[in-house]
Amino acid sequence: MSRYSNPTMKDVAREAGVALGTVSKVINNQPVGEEYRIKVENAIKSLDYKVNTYARGLKTKQSYTIALILPDIINPFFASIAHYTELYLFELNYKLMLCCSQGKCEKELFYINMASQNKVDGIIALTYSDISSYVSEDLPIISIDRHFNNTVLCVASDNYTGGYLATEKLIGAGCKHPVYIRTGSVVYGETNKRKYGYLDACEHNGITPDILDLTDGDDTIECFRNFLEQSYERKDVPPIDGIFTVNDYLGFQLIEYLHSIHKDIPEDIQLVGFDGIQHFGSLGYYMSTIAQPVERIAKACVDILLSPDKSKYPNPYLLPVEYKYGGTTLL
Amino acid sequence: MSRYSNPTMKDVAREAGVALGTVSKVINNQPVGEEYRIKVENAIKSLDYKVNTYARGLKTKQSYTIALILPDIINPFFASIAHYTELYLFELNYKLMLCCSQGKCEKELFYINMASQNKVDGIIALTYSDISSYVSEDLPIISIDRHFNNTVLCVASDNYTGGYLATEKLIGAGCKHPVYIRTGSVVYGETNKRKYGYLDACEHNGITPDILDLTDGDDTIECFRNFLEQSYERKDVPPIDGIFTVNDYLGFQLIEYLHSIHKDIPEDIQLVGFDGIQHFGSLGYYMSTIAQPVERIAKACVDILLSPDKSKYPNPYLLPVEYKYGGTTLL
Repeated sequence: MSRYSNPTMKDVAREAGVALGTVSKVINNQPVGEEYRIKVENAIKSLDYKVNTYARGLKTKQSYTIALILPDIINPFFASIAHYTELYLFELNYKLMLCCSQGKCEKELFYINMASQNKVDGIIALTYSDISSYVSEDLPIISIDRHFNNTVLCVASDNYTGGYLATEKLIGAGCKHPVYIRTGSVVYGETNKRKYGYLDACEHNGITPDILDLTDGDDTIECFRNFLEQSYERKDVPPIDGIFTVNDYLGFQLIEYLHSIHKDIPEDIQLVGFDGIQHFGSLGYYMSTIAQPVERIAKACVDILLSPDKSKYPNPYLLPVEYKYGGTTLL
Repeated sequence: MSRYSNPTMKDVAREAGVALGTVSKVINNQPVGEEYRIKVENAIKSLDYKVNTYARGLKTKQSYTIALILPDIINPFFASIAHYTELYLFELNYKLMLCCSQGKCEKELFYINMASQNKVDGIIALTYSDISSYVSEDLPIISIDRHFNNTVLCVASDNYTGGYLATEKLIGAGCKHPVYIRTGSVVYGETNKRKYGYLDACEHNGITPDILDLTDGDDTIECFRNFLEQSYERKDVPPIDGIFTVNDYLGFQLIEYLHSIHKDIPEDIQLVGFDGIQHFGSLGYYMSTIAQPVERIAKACVDILLSPDKSKYPNPYLLPVEYKYGGTTLL
């Protein structure tokens, strides 16, 4: 329980038993002894301290810079988000500061703190950390794919419809046993709705759903191999003949494995991914897929972030997806 | 011929017949009438005006921000450059400002001007524009792949050795008629040395070189088809049985075409690309390739840019490449 109704950086210093400058260093990610860092981080948690943004009311000048927080930009989906965000910001005379967080909460916190100090005008973040606990209501921030709470507006694809569409495509192309396979973070995000789309499409077509739900750290291929083999031994269902994967990255790994065990795609098993990744960004789809409208997502994040009245936008703010044929389905 | 030995922004305004504020707007990429923009740009060229950086001597504080200029970050090679540059800068408490120039010189100029105004501490640029004419000697800038002149230090892969290695691999794997195929900008860069590596490897092995040199705008596949067909009609050389492409992007396009005309790779034709692009950044190489040391290139750019004494580094500063087997060669 917090002993302070609205804790300040000074309260954190007192709670941690360190100097105020040490707290500042931790928040600003400056070098500081590991034991001090731990003390300060524990105090921040136990007090439920949020980076103080009172200074925003005093703001006299803008930086015309927006920080974009992504897990990395090696992943082609994230890279294209960064690409279109930069292009659109520049049209509006804004600059982009890029943060590849690698999922490190303290790195994300560093940029959030920059926003509170007016060093950047706002933040667009795609994160799996629960940064909502660090974000106060008046901090200008837009979340991609992750729905924190009502104070942080979330922009995402219409993942439910995407999941429904992918499953309907498989069923329409003749699949009697379409499965959904997911891997990734255990944190709840908008992307979980892909599963609900799958479930509803199965129900509407009188098909028993079958899901393989993996988490980071599982041996993806080993789990998939077992799942597939067990399905072939079952007498109550037809063999697996359709796969909807949570993203193209997972779909690619499964396609490689299926080729290695001499399964023909799409003849034996049809597959639909999600994201719409293309070879080298523009040289054709890896697989049949639900394409996310990356350019529109980037534009919506910028438009809403810079809008004086965010309350006019629904939360989450969803954008339409599209099915793209990419050779791994019959239709 | 310039009438001013060391032209200032005022000289540009006089030459263009516009107000000083208009010149400032053009250089800072602010909205301005198209005819004014053209007048100012012509004046900049005719006076050989370089963004004035005298204010650097008065510098009292740093921004701890570096601008990275890339053509785009959809291309996976550029995306990984940005990724590793950001990670390494952050370790050193620097932030990254990202500019996707799309080859637009005026967008690059905007960031160069930010550096001259101390809004960023330096620039790392991969550009096909001749920005050297806008860069004064004391501007902290590092160029990737493009060797402007002795005042701008260039970091690049050892492209000559890469070209030599690729060709030797093809010859060593039995190719009697290995060709080099290039497409891209006509601007001379470090990457042109890939051709010299190819030529020398051919000469050392007693093989007549054969090059298809395409430029942006050519129909790549159509030109390649003609090149291939003509080679089959020649009696003086064996049919083409090996291809070294200037990059993996071109290699991927040729592989797709060769499959479409039922050529087997590597049985009929072996192929080596350049760059070392992997599926989804980490899921295996597209083809046998000369991999660029992207992480080391990024680190070298940052280290040299932040070094107080750049004169201790050779120019160009070259980093070693590595051959990676990726299924499109016999070895």
